[in-house]
Amino acid sequence: MDFIEKLLKASRKNNTLLCIGLDPDPLLMPDVEVAEFNRQIIEATKDLVCAYKPNLAFYEVLGIDGLIALEKTLTFIPGDIPVIADAKRGDIGNTARKYAQALFEIYGFDAATVNPYLGHDSLEPFMDYTDRGIFILCNTSNAGAADFQQLRCRSDAAKDAVPLFELVAMKAAEWNVHRNIGLVVGATQPRSLRRVRQLCPDMSLLIPGIGAQGGELSSAVQYGVDANGEKAIINCSRQVLYASKGKDFPSAARLEAARLREQMNQQRMIATESTEKRVGCRG
Amino acid sequence: MDFIEKLLKASRKNNTLLCIGLDPDPLLMPDVEVAEFNRQIIEATKDLVCAYKPNLAFYEVLGIDGLIALEKTLTFIPGDIPVIADAKRGDIGNTARKYAQALFEIYGFDAATVNPYLGHDSLEPFMDYTDRGIFILCNTSNAGAADFQQLRCRSDAAKDAVPLFELVAMKAAEWNVHRNIGLVVGATQPRSLRRVRQLCPDMSLLIPGIGAQGGELSSAVQYGVDANGEKAIINCSRQVLYASKGKDFPSAARLEAARLREQMNQQRMIATESTEKRVGCRG
Repeated sequence: MDFIEKLLKASRKNNTLLCIGLDPDPLLMPDVEVAEFNRQIIEATKDLVCAYKPNLAFYEVLGIDGLIALEKTLTFIPGDIPVIADAKRGDIGNTARKYAQALFEIYGFDAATVNPYLGHDSLEPFMDYTDRGIFILCNTSNAGAADFQQLRCRSDAAKDAVPLFELVAMKAAEWNVHRNIGLVVGATQPRSLRRVRQLCPDMSLLIPGIGAQGGELSSAVQYGVDANGEKAIINCSRQVLYASKGKDFPSAARLEAARLREQMNQQRMIATESTEKRVGCRG
Repeated sequence: MDFIEKLLKASRKNNTLLCIGLDPDPLLMPDVEVAEFNRQIIEATKDLVCAYKPNLAFYEVLGIDGLIALEKTLTFIPGDIPVIADAKRGDIGNTARKYAQALFEIYGFDAATVNPYLGHDSLEPFMDYTDRGIFILCNTSNAGAADFQQLRCRSDAAKDAVPLFELVAMKAAEWNVHRNIGLVVGATQPRSLRRVRQLCPDMSLLIPGIGAQGGELSSAVQYGVDANGEKAIINCSRQVLYASKGKDFPSAARLEAARLREQMNQQRMIATESTEKRVGCRG
């Protein structure tokens, strides 16, 4: 089963667009080991999510012990829920091959986030794993996205100068021969999200930035989903993980995850209804 | 002592611009453990280099054992030789802080390479370590550099549209308040290297791409050095590490490193002579 099938299956089974970012931060966590914290979060939320997304920085900062905790964490995730390595790797071809191998073969992730700055040959080793997903950073959720991603650039791909992130989306569509490419588009700039969805109507979009980062859930869902109300992976981390700092953190996380899933599904209904209306008008 | 002082001191003491990329690849290496391979390479070359640069992908692909080998390797490098983590990290602020902490505090690297795609706030946590170096990817040595880095973009920083990598160089200069930023510029495109050196006359440039990747040593040095013939860190990996696949690999590596250092120093002399002539004409 390839990544996109696995994603859609999990998303349909659990009726959800919610992805939980497994980013354990000892400063914010209750007093419990990292792997055990993740285990309890996973146990409490596994029927509410379409994917989990550990960000590698949170494990690397804990040294070797952190990476052992990451390996353990992966064993706690049910086999039918896809796991996305938020690694944002990007290097020249022969080195990118090592990163892809590390993430897909050593850790066994179902998908990984990658950085497009080094271009096609830096992404190809990831794309070559045709059963895995690759999410290319497009328009990120942080303020710094304005520095380069939003500069207007000229390219053969577009007649007029367009923002760099749109060119990344266009190139990603062109490179998507194995149908395993998705894009990372922050929820913090709804218009850009809508634009990317227009450019790539069929791609999976990984959407961080709601909650702590200030993005709105409603526009994230409405602009993020495809025409079927699917293929938007809406990520939440801090809001779910740290819903309580007490011993009740698993139940508090579950409550928050359930609430988010419900809100997303309401917005999804609005989005698909309006699509149906539009399609109806055309017909 | 901050990074740039440490770099210049090592470079002057060993009279060299050569940086060796410690990228152990079991497929290319003689039959020896990774850490032991690195130890022997370091032992054989430590008086010939201005820096060592392990690329993290080559360790991550070996799993936990690889990272233990990396930790060990760092203990073999003499304290007065700077070590650059070739990690090419880039993430939103709170996550970038974790990466910076992992590289600078957990591993104790003197410098790290980072990816500019996410903009200023993704680099700031690295820059905030004012005694460490940060090398921002600018124009990389691979073919994919053409996909985005070389697109002409409009920005407030320049009147006319200029290639994205030039804007990255300009922004890096603007952000360089702690004087700890350098740039990664591949040797494979000498004109771009020359342009970056013009834009950033005083910055350290980390220059990969000579040898296996096809860049010319002569232009890498001549266009890479500053007016004093310094601050160019010319990286070689495969050419030195795999000079022999036999038991004589340390002496073969030493021979190759010494040859490269000598060639670089010859080119450096040509570069500084022509600078002196130019300065002389003006005076």
